[in-house]
Amino acid sequence: MEKYKVVFHINESNKWSTLLANVNNLIKDLGKDNVIVEVVANGTAVSDYVSDSNKDDNNLINKVSEAINFGVKFLACKNSLASNKIDERLIPEFITVIPAGVTELVKKQAAGYGYIKP
Amino acid sequence: MEKYKVVFHINESNKWSTLLANVNNLIKDLGKDNVIVEVVANGTAVSDYVSDSNKDDNNLINKVSEAINFGVKFLACKNSLASNKIDERLIPEFITVIPAGVTELVKKQAAGYGYIKP
Amino acid sequence: MEKYKVVFHINESNKWSTLLANVNNLIKDLGKDNVIVEVVANGTAVSDYVSDSNKDDNNLINKVSEAINFGVKFLACKNSLASNKIDERLIPEFITVIPAGVTELVKKQAAGYGYIKP
Repeated sequence: MEKYKVVFHINESNKWSTLLANVNNLIKDLGKDNVIVEVVANGTAVSDYVSDSNKDDNNLINKVSEAINFGVKFLACKNSLASNKIDERLIPEFITVIPAGVTELVKKQAAGYGYIKP
Repeated sequence: MEKYKVVFHINESNKWSTLLANVNNLIKDLGKDNVIVEVVANGTAVSDYVSDSNKDDNNLINKVSEAINFGVKFLACKNSLASNKIDERLIPEFITVIPAGVTELVKKQAAGYGYIKP
Repeated sequence: MEKYKVVFHINESNKWSTLLANVNNLIKDLGKDNVIVEVVANGTAVSDYVSDSNKDDNNLINKVSEAINFGVKFLACKNSLASNKIDERLIPEFITVIPAGVTELVKKQAAGYGYIKP
């Protein structure tokens, strides 16, 4: 059977917990080998990719790392990093920085991915 | 002519009136025999499926019942019922409870449904 | 190469700046000759199509006009104009008024367009 494919779109910082719960539920339900999941962050959502040493350990970066272990790919929009004045070098290496988040959303849907905006 | 197919996604309780207006406008415009409409509720939106006898009669459940008469299918995410501490037995029988709302969104898009998030 | 195709959906007035930034980034990244972009406004978002002479010149209508120069098509939902009590005759002629925004979203996705909700 061909794998299901989906791109999640997040552009607001306060939607991360919902998005990660959605991703976890999807993988738990379909099984990680049956679905390809990609998360495209643009807008203010990209700011959460930067680790904050003042926060406790249970932060977004840890949860993202867990999802990556299930094969989920996380991307950050370079335009959004610039407009939110975030130094690209602060983005963890397991996050892929792409020129434009919207282009990725268009290309993935053209390649048969479903779209979900939590 | 093949019917149009669309899955509406709602994950916030305060979007129900917009969603139901969208669904009504779509059916009025295309005609109920020309479009297949499904509504997937997850997140806090599932809480509105439970009837509140303290509210007046003009509540969501009545409007959902009207839409069902036009062939619209309404679904509730079981994960979201659990996280919102809603007893599944309180969900009206004309709502279909599914294991994971996100899985339904992925599968329906893979089957050619459009996606709308009101 | 076939052009990419995408329909942007906006139903909240406060999302226009994000939407226009997204559209600009997409066209800048892909090139205006490689992508067909359509913007469907319903809900309160249609109210911003009406020019307000009390605002300064840097308003939405100017930015929309700029995007139109790159081939972007902007549409307004007639149902939403009515529910927001906006006289259709106040909508600039370069905006296309359609009977139902949701129908357009469904038809465009059926025709292979991706969907983005900023």
